[in-house]
Amino acid sequence: MVVRGAPAIGVTAAYGCCLALREAVEQDDWKSALAENLDKLERARPTAVNLSWAVRLMRALHEELGEVRAQDLAKAWFARAKQLHAEDIETNRRMGAFGAELIEDGDTVMTHCNAGALATAGHGTALGVIYSAVEQGKKIKVIANETRPFLQGARLTAYELHKAGVPVTVACDNACALLMKRGMVQKVVVGADRIAANGDAVNKIGTFGVALLAKHFGIPFYVAAPLSTIDRDTPTGDDIPIEDRTPREVTHVGDTQITPDGVPVYNFAFDPTPAELIHGVITEKGVLREPYGASIKKAFDG
Amino acid sequence: MVVRGAPAIGVTAAYGCCLALREAVEQDDWKSALAENLDKLERARPTAVNLSWAVRLMRALHEELGEVRAQDLAKAWFARAKQLHAEDIETNRRMGAFGAELIEDGDTVMTHCNAGALATAGHGTALGVIYSAVEQGKKIKVIANETRPFLQGARLTAYELHKAGVPVTVACDNACALLMKRGMVQKVVVGADRIAANGDAVNKIGTFGVALLAKHFGIPFYVAAPLSTIDRDTPTGDDIPIEDRTPREVTHVGDTQITPDGVPVYNFAFDPTPAELIHGVITEKGVLREPYGASIKKAFDG
Repeated sequence: MVVRGAPAIGVTAAYGCCLALREAVEQDDWKSALAENLDKLERARPTAVNLSWAVRLMRALHEELGEVRAQDLAKAWFARAKQLHAEDIETNRRMGAFGAELIEDGDTVMTHCNAGALATAGHGTALGVIYSAVEQGKKIKVIANETRPFLQGARLTAYELHKAGVPVTVACDNACALLMKRGMVQKVVVGADRIAANGDAVNKIGTFGVALLAKHFGIPFYVAAPLSTIDRDTPTGDDIPIEDRTPREVTHVGDTQITPDGVPVYNFAFDPTPAELIHGVITEKGVLREPYGASIKKAFDG
Repeated sequence: MVVRGAPAIGVTAAYGCCLALREAVEQDDWKSALAENLDKLERARPTAVNLSWAVRLMRALHEELGEVRAQDLAKAWFARAKQLHAEDIETNRRMGAFGAELIEDGDTVMTHCNAGALATAGHGTALGVIYSAVEQGKKIKVIANETRPFLQGARLTAYELHKAGVPVTVACDNACALLMKRGMVQKVVVGADRIAANGDAVNKIGTFGVALLAKHFGIPFYVAAPLSTIDRDTPTGDDIPIEDRTPREVTHVGDTQITPDGVPVYNFAFDPTPAELIHGVITEKGVLREPYGASIKKAFDG
């Protein structure tokens, strides 16, 4: 959890492959050692698809090069990692431009978890959309859901928006329905850890509930994510494994214990939001719309 | 916030009237001093109706007694406070018996906030229902939503159920939709701070969202509250004032600050759940059903 945010995990994983290679070359059989290191890297976070996406890209590059010396592979991989890094920044910029068109002057945008500069190599996915709208001169306010248990919204989203001069208010996740009912939210924009082939989007726990409430109140709910987050090999959101994380994230906040000793807790880190609750998926190739099976296919192949 | 839970606030307010009188008799004009003290007491918590209900009862008793010496009023009030206290225990017992009929063997019941022995004089409203079901030999599990920001679920509900030997698991409020979708919740039972004449129920922030999600997943959602929580003078939930509490409950957990300096927060303490989301209101006179306007009238007058 030192690196978090799906796109940041992808770029980091690419550099991670370079480090895995550097470690492997110190072994007698560097190819076997490398394969083992990559397997380990791939398993580090089961939900975010960008990790395995990056490792797969690097493996493919290795295959393309065929019989290659370790030092040449290292050179090729490092160049590719730098390229992915630059592409992530450019992708963020493009997503921001497409997404900003959906945000109106005066909107208050709710976001859940952190999908900003702290989760990507660039200025963010969901927050990139907000930054782009602000750059267009639109007056935007943001409600950052605090996002229990890890509090990415309270800690990271609030920090980066406040620092960027975008008006942001933190709300407990519990306030969502009341804020929506009172007309205090015009749009919801969130990131995603993995999007299935049918458009179901897995994101931080609580996103599914926010999407259902948004639907109830007729508030458009958007997911901002690069195409690298779309996993066409996974048919639906229910096929995406949900990471079950350490109880301590729930039982403690900092050093303060908030649950009694001996009481178990649930700590599912993500949930899948069904495609039918999503008004649009904001990608670097434009805003994908229902039916997502077709629009996703077109974005990749068309 | 030293005393919390609507019924506990009611019983405490009755004893509080006795203390207000004791303080007033030290003034020259004890009747004016008393009137002032009672006004102050009444305004201490705007949302829970049991506070003003109890003060109103004591005022009515004073009027009945007419011209009365302070020491005689003190005697009458203390007797009445003890009676209300005993009645609250008996009311809890009756509500538990009616509510337990709604819970099936093997159910997992979700509850939000704390509506147990720590919120009433007796064994609780929502938790009283669970204790009664367990006493009937039903195997019940409970999911206690942690209930940000004040964490009454994580701290109080988990503590008292665990101590009573009822299996309880704490979940972040954000997990609600996923837990319901996975079939891990068969019933929701919560307490209430005030119920309007039309059946809308104001309870801890987040309850409205839980009720909307329960509706979506077809899970029965019940409110357990004594008739003293029903305020027939307030037409709908939207007419009930929502307490806006100190930001520190959101910005800090214990001594740990979780939001950046300078970022504002929302801390609405309650939200109204519309009557149409409520399957039944469990009272000491039975389970009230839609249409609530009529069933509430009957419970009081019939």
